[in-house]
Amino acid sequence: MNANLPVDKIRPLQSVARFDYETDVLVCGYGGAGAAAALEAALAGAQVLVLERASAGGGATAMSSCEMYLGGSGGTALQKATGFEDSTENMAAYLREALGPLGDDERIRCYAEGAAAHFDWAESLGVPYKRAAFLERTVVPLTDESLLFTGNEKSHPFNRVAAPVPRGHVPSREGDEGGQLFMNAIMARVSEAGAEVLADTRLLALLRDEQGAICGAVAKRENREICIRAHRGVVLTTGGFVMNQEMTRQYLPEINQYAVPYGSSNDIGDGIVLGLAAGGQVINMDQAFLSFPLYPPAKLTYGVLLNARGERYINEDAYLARLAWYSCQQPGQKFYLLVQEEDYAASDYLERAPVVATGDTIAEVAAEAPFPAGKLEQTVSYFNQYAAQGEDPLFHKAAEWLKPLSKPPYALVEYSANEMRAVIVPGSAGPLMFTLGGLKTRTTGEVLDVSDRPIPGLYAAGRATAGLPRSGKGYASGMSVGDATFFGRRAGQAVAARSI
Amino acid sequence: MNANLPVDKIRPLQSVARFDYETDVLVCGYGGAGAAAALEAALAGAQVLVLERASAGGGATAMSSCEMYLGGSGGTALQKATGFEDSTENMAAYLREALGPLGDDERIRCYAEGAAAHFDWAESLGVPYKRAAFLERTVVPLTDESLLFTGNEKSHPFNRVAAPVPRGHVPSREGDEGGQLFMNAIMARVSEAGAEVLADTRLLALLRDEQGAICGAVAKRENREICIRAHRGVVLTTGGFVMNQEMTRQYLPEINQYAVPYGSSNDIGDGIVLGLAAGGQVINMDQAFLSFPLYPPAKLTYGVLLNARGERYINEDAYLARLAWYSCQQPGQKFYLLVQEEDYAASDYLERAPVVATGDTIAEVAAEAPFPAGKLEQTVSYFNQYAAQGEDPLFHKAAEWLKPLSKPPYALVEYSANEMRAVIVPGSAGPLMFTLGGLKTRTTGEVLDVSDRPIPGLYAAGRATAGLPRSGKGYASGMSVGDATFFGRRAGQAVAARSI
Repeated sequence: MNANLPVDKIRPLQSVARFDYETDVLVCGYGGAGAAAALEAALAGAQVLVLERASAGGGATAMSSCEMYLGGSGGTALQKATGFEDSTENMAAYLREALGPLGDDERIRCYAEGAAAHFDWAESLGVPYKRAAFLERTVVPLTDESLLFTGNEKSHPFNRVAAPVPRGHVPSREGDEGGQLFMNAIMARVSEAGAEVLADTRLLALLRDEQGAICGAVAKRENREICIRAHRGVVLTTGGFVMNQEMTRQYLPEINQYAVPYGSSNDIGDGIVLGLAAGGQVINMDQAFLSFPLYPPAKLTYGVLLNARGERYINEDAYLARLAWYSCQQPGQKFYLLVQEEDYAASDYLERAPVVATGDTIAEVAAEAPFPAGKLEQTVSYFNQYAAQGEDPLFHKAAEWLKPLSKPPYALVEYSANEMRAVIVPGSAGPLMFTLGGLKTRTTGEVLDVSDRPIPGLYAAGRATAGLPRSGKGYASGMSVGDATFFGRRAGQAVAARSI
Repeated sequence: MNANLPVDKIRPLQSVARFDYETDVLVCGYGGAGAAAALEAALAGAQVLVLERASAGGGATAMSSCEMYLGGSGGTALQKATGFEDSTENMAAYLREALGPLGDDERIRCYAEGAAAHFDWAESLGVPYKRAAFLERTVVPLTDESLLFTGNEKSHPFNRVAAPVPRGHVPSREGDEGGQLFMNAIMARVSEAGAEVLADTRLLALLRDEQGAICGAVAKRENREICIRAHRGVVLTTGGFVMNQEMTRQYLPEINQYAVPYGSSNDIGDGIVLGLAAGGQVINMDQAFLSFPLYPPAKLTYGVLLNARGERYINEDAYLARLAWYSCQQPGQKFYLLVQEEDYAASDYLERAPVVATGDTIAEVAAEAPFPAGKLEQTVSYFNQYAAQGEDPLFHKAAEWLKPLSKPPYALVEYSANEMRAVIVPGSAGPLMFTLGGLKTRTTGEVLDVSDRPIPGLYAAGRATAGLPRSGKGYASGMSVGDATFFGRRAGQAVAARSI
């Protein structure tokens, strides 16, 4: 991968004749993780320099709604004010179920214990959070409420192991501009704290001293190489690798065939590759977030999702990333929604998907549908029989979304990967994805080598690492920005405190 | 991972005061890949030293049946003699379908072009291959035939893209001792060629010179460290990592929960970790071979496999690794075989699995079965309707295995992961697995760094690498030994020819 970068990625400190910058802490990448790391390091008294490849900070966090997945400790201030109680154990139980064997227990515990205080921190930056919850099934509130359900909390099997509580905390603003709001606030605090930022600066290599510690970097700026000495260490907050096609082909060969990269154009994995070159491990590289935003409108949830065999494969009330994960497991990444007229509408976040069959009876739909003969009738008859009783013995869709398909006409909508066109990425055809693998770190951000020992002076956070979210199947909106800022802060504290 | 090895894995050449051994080529690991590499290097005129952790050579290859997946070029000598024609393009088409986006096109082409000649080579070692084919559905012939189907050649979807040809080439001997037969033959040739073998010797570290080339190793033997200088280079043929629990937990977190490690007890990934420490990349680390040897007896194939929802999920005539892959994708890794009496028997390679329901009608079975009410009747009625016409519109099981379930009594056998007890691993509970990820190499065996540049002096082959087989879903018996010996030879040739 990255065969197009012929430079040596790790260079000896002695090779540098003159430093253009000297600092205590060098932060590479000025998105959510980098800003959080820079702020904490600066507040701890360290001199901080931040490099950013783009012309301004922001990264993928600025593009996002800036939902943060927070709770525990009896509830965040926002949860409490809106009448929700949340225990640390309840939140940890949810996260363990969501992440399954891919989860990192220590990270889950650390996060669940600190998440409520992290909300206070985010608010203290000057980010507005309105004490109001938006409880309909949606992706992000376009009104100004700040709390919502952003995962699978209310659906099977999660509702069996943890009491459903909304944990999506989003800056208050009409429209979807939370990310820019948050980044503007934190970048102002970073400047006030005295950190210096070099934009339009491209990271090329890390510097290593004779004891093996990472102690600086080489970057390209205004078409010349600059050398930076970082006395305490370097924090890699360069983002994931979704925009690096060689890397997605190598690490996500199947998903790469149909998914559409979504992120900052600078999510090219450059920090991950430098961390690897420094002897770091990468883990969870085969996992990605995928999005199938069937809803809103929520009423589409009353329909049934079918694969190309005409069989259901998931409880349709699952969160959009889980819908996508299971949908993309279906043969040929083909999937369909059968819905009756009163529940039909175009999905807000998808261009209108083709209706491939219609009818006043299921048999009429079946005659036009691309399913094996007789299968649709069988599937619907089984679903209807139990839905009438408020039951879904196959997938346990919650009773509130169960309704027999009995009011014609019916439509069969094709939402398969090829037909899924995300409104926010014009010209796309496929579920949006971003990567969930990266450098292996401790909760302090220390990057671990192949013997699980920290590489002295090297830290990382955000999507350059395998952080809290490790699975599209169990993802919840807010896990990534929550993780990036939470563990970014810890990395900033750790590097500033490093004894040298 | 491997936090229990506190030694430095890469040491500078200058740190060695005295060498215990000097050689041109050092081969680490004396299984199929290592023997093939050692033999070719020695025949090319290089001085060769082989290290082996166990008390004798053999590795996982000696434990195997030594099936090699070979064909192409009009047919191997064995295919031709038994009346089968096979083209390189037909073989490559099969491999591409089997490996999908995980496959390495260059490797597939190289292998398909050279596989027929590789058979001649194996036979030239003195390994007996009888000109006879065993064409029943089985895993390995227990009689002395040498050719059989060992993959999904005859089943959907493979039979749509490539003409089915048997490609499993197995040494001729009654019983299942092909691996030992092969290893004895090749190890005799290695000795004749003048290579030296140090058994009971544990690889600790690689040596690197000032130019960054790998030029030797440090090992432990008779409780002391020995240092070996390798003038042309080092070949890592140390096997996969299936016996290293820290690594399987890290790289295969889901599979690791239910699968049973299968391999040589020395498949601990030590070579992979050393390759990583030397700056090599690892790929495909999330993939493993899994085994669900439902057959023989072949007649069990007439039954239908069901998940815990009482739904079919695969064409039952697939190869055992594909059966396992799809079975383990089912919820809770629970799966069942519904079979009528005339087709029932215990699987040869599994301890007798529990019959969890029986009946003279499907409704009677359903009453005892752990499925949602009404589902089994629906599934069987749909299956029977089409099976009577020789069709399987859902999964395309081949007509030769289609037969309505209409002769009672019926039995429902539970084969789920927890109940699957492999005869060859006493006490096991789960599908057997071995790993398919490892160092990224060229077809020459050169190990690639994070910029896809060869690390000078470092080569690898066999399951220490991501080789030809990359997917349990599309695996065929013989892909791994075929790959290990084929690319082991090429690594041996390349290292011997390295200009220094």
